[in-house]
Amino acid sequence: MEILALQDYNIYVGEFNEHLKNLLRENDYSRLIVLVDQNTRRHCWPLLEPVIREREHTLIEIPAGEQHKHLQTCQLIWQHMMEARADRRSLAINLGGGVIGDMGGFCAATFKRGMDFIQMPTTLLSQVDASIGGKLGIDFMQVKNSIGVFRNPQAVFIDPRFLKTLPVRELRSGFAEIIKHSLIADREQWEQLRRITDLDTVDWPALIVPSLRIKQHIVEVDPFERGLRKALNFGHTIGHAVEGYALETDTPLLHGEAIAVGMIAEAHLSYQKAGLSESGLSLITDFIRHIYHPEALLVDTYDELLSLMTNDKKNTGKAINFSLLPDYGSVVVDQTATEAEIVSSLTYFNEAVLPLTNRQ
Amino acid sequence: MEILALQDYNIYVGEFNEHLKNLLRENDYSRLIVLVDQNTRRHCWPLLEPVIREREHTLIEIPAGEQHKHLQTCQLIWQHMMEARADRRSLAINLGGGVIGDMGGFCAATFKRGMDFIQMPTTLLSQVDASIGGKLGIDFMQVKNSIGVFRNPQAVFIDPRFLKTLPVRELRSGFAEIIKHSLIADREQWEQLRRITDLDTVDWPALIVPSLRIKQHIVEVDPFERGLRKALNFGHTIGHAVEGYALETDTPLLHGEAIAVGMIAEAHLSYQKAGLSESGLSLITDFIRHIYHPEALLVDTYDELLSLMTNDKKNTGKAINFSLLPDYGSVVVDQTATEAEIVSSLTYFNEAVLPLTNRQ
Repeated sequence: MEILALQDYNIYVGEFNEHLKNLLRENDYSRLIVLVDQNTRRHCWPLLEPVIREREHTLIEIPAGEQHKHLQTCQLIWQHMMEARADRRSLAINLGGGVIGDMGGFCAATFKRGMDFIQMPTTLLSQVDASIGGKLGIDFMQVKNSIGVFRNPQAVFIDPRFLKTLPVRELRSGFAEIIKHSLIADREQWEQLRRITDLDTVDWPALIVPSLRIKQHIVEVDPFERGLRKALNFGHTIGHAVEGYALETDTPLLHGEAIAVGMIAEAHLSYQKAGLSESGLSLITDFIRHIYHPEALLVDTYDELLSLMTNDKKNTGKAINFSLLPDYGSVVVDQTATEAEIVSSLTYFNEAVLPLTNRQ
Repeated sequence: MEILALQDYNIYVGEFNEHLKNLLRENDYSRLIVLVDQNTRRHCWPLLEPVIREREHTLIEIPAGEQHKHLQTCQLIWQHMMEARADRRSLAINLGGGVIGDMGGFCAATFKRGMDFIQMPTTLLSQVDASIGGKLGIDFMQVKNSIGVFRNPQAVFIDPRFLKTLPVRELRSGFAEIIKHSLIADREQWEQLRRITDLDTVDWPALIVPSLRIKQHIVEVDPFERGLRKALNFGHTIGHAVEGYALETDTPLLHGEAIAVGMIAEAHLSYQKAGLSESGLSLITDFIRHIYHPEALLVDTYDELLSLMTNDKKNTGKAINFSLLPDYGSVVVDQTATEAEIVSSLTYFNEAVLPLTNRQ
């Protein structure tokens, strides 16, 4: 068991049973509300149920998937909380991936103006990405996380047992945030990561803890995303737009899959505008391409992608904001790019991912 | 101009023009979003418009009234914010009564995880009640303010010019909170108030400022309603239920009108359970009855009223919580009452408000 002590709460990496019991013993919660989806109910709830069996609890199940991370699902959650007579002294337990954590946290933070909640992230992505920073929210008008609040949980429990139930596509998605953390802040970890060729043989806890420490440092310096925290947005301006667009198609992408696309395109923007070397750009592109095998973007979607980027909440006024890499392990924030530069990066991405046989 | 300096922000009581100009000059907001309803657009916007005319601004108009304080209206507001390309560095200005302040504040606090907002309360009720405490929210499943957050505005501007446009019924509604503040914390102000017979001749700013100071003191001691702040709930457990119920009928009540009912009934609970004297109970009853002329409650609504009280967010677990008066100017919190005691208070209220000619 490894414990990361953040300013307001702890992250427990390991089997959660004893530490969760302690937390419940130390707090006199009127009732527990456990949020699950059909997957975590089947695969993860059996690990949690024995620990809270003797306390008054209500299970709320919502449909799995980013396409349900919206206000209608919140209404369902709030309604069940109301019917379960949850109150301000209840505790919400969010057992699931990023959607459950972001939306369940938002519902808890706003139900009767806020009850305590704990996060039990069950995907690699949410373990690495959503455990720190207090960002909660839902998608609105196709814009990701555009309604939400900042609020910290009482605790986060990262249990490696949950990862064993994940398909490899989910692991790959979470791996994108680990790559991002290393690229923006830890050259040594990047050198180590870029030698990984097979995700099946990775020791995940050994990668999660250093990755969390990078995010912890950044978020503690800048909790409300006024400065340094924007570093975490590398790959995310274009990545979010790609993800939002794909959500409306028959082939939605997982978050990390979209961020992988964003990191290649924004590495090219970094090369155009922030001094990243050509060899650096190639190395990043080749590594991500090898792990993710991303599909090319259709040229006639560029306009909609640009429009989604314009509405990204990281922007101030009309400019589109980026965080770019001058080199591995370092980052510059508050960079803006013209539409032409962005289109040029999307074109670079498309050429890079075309199968060799299709190239001129 | 009187300025109350709170921990995080100032309340300006007087004409707002110069102080608002200063605030806008000191902050580089990307755009202003002004929320109005059809009434404040007509009566209050003409006072604000000249001050912000030269800044980029968007007016969002929503229908007036508590019956629109719900998630559907929030969606409308968020949608307009999105279309106006509002971002985290924008400023929302909530120009209206409690509904505009609570709901506009909630929308601002959650749009892109939070933008700054200022409150310009235009009713007596919202000037006295909603200016302090950071409580934001909307009604959900007939339960008042059951979805919301705590967040403070950048400033509050209380301009007496707005009161001149109000019907007397609105003034009377706001007066209920002034009565409540005096009853729970200021015996001298109560002795002064109870001599008021005609609301037309009242010097409102002279009553508002001391009333705000009472609330300021209470909220600063207990910002998240864990203890003393519950004192402010006197009259509100029953009052909220009455208000929630009336909202669904053809004769909805204004908030203060419902709280007036709640204060009579909870004064009787105070007499039953907290040591309020019989003469004290009579004096409070007679004064409120004289000002408000409340209608009797229908006996067959008692069950629904009790059910609404059970769902009030002030409760912990299953008990129904009250704040009661042992005497004028003092209060005890965390009191519970049985259903029989509550019904007895509702019966007392009904007998007290029956016209003399109808009594046995």
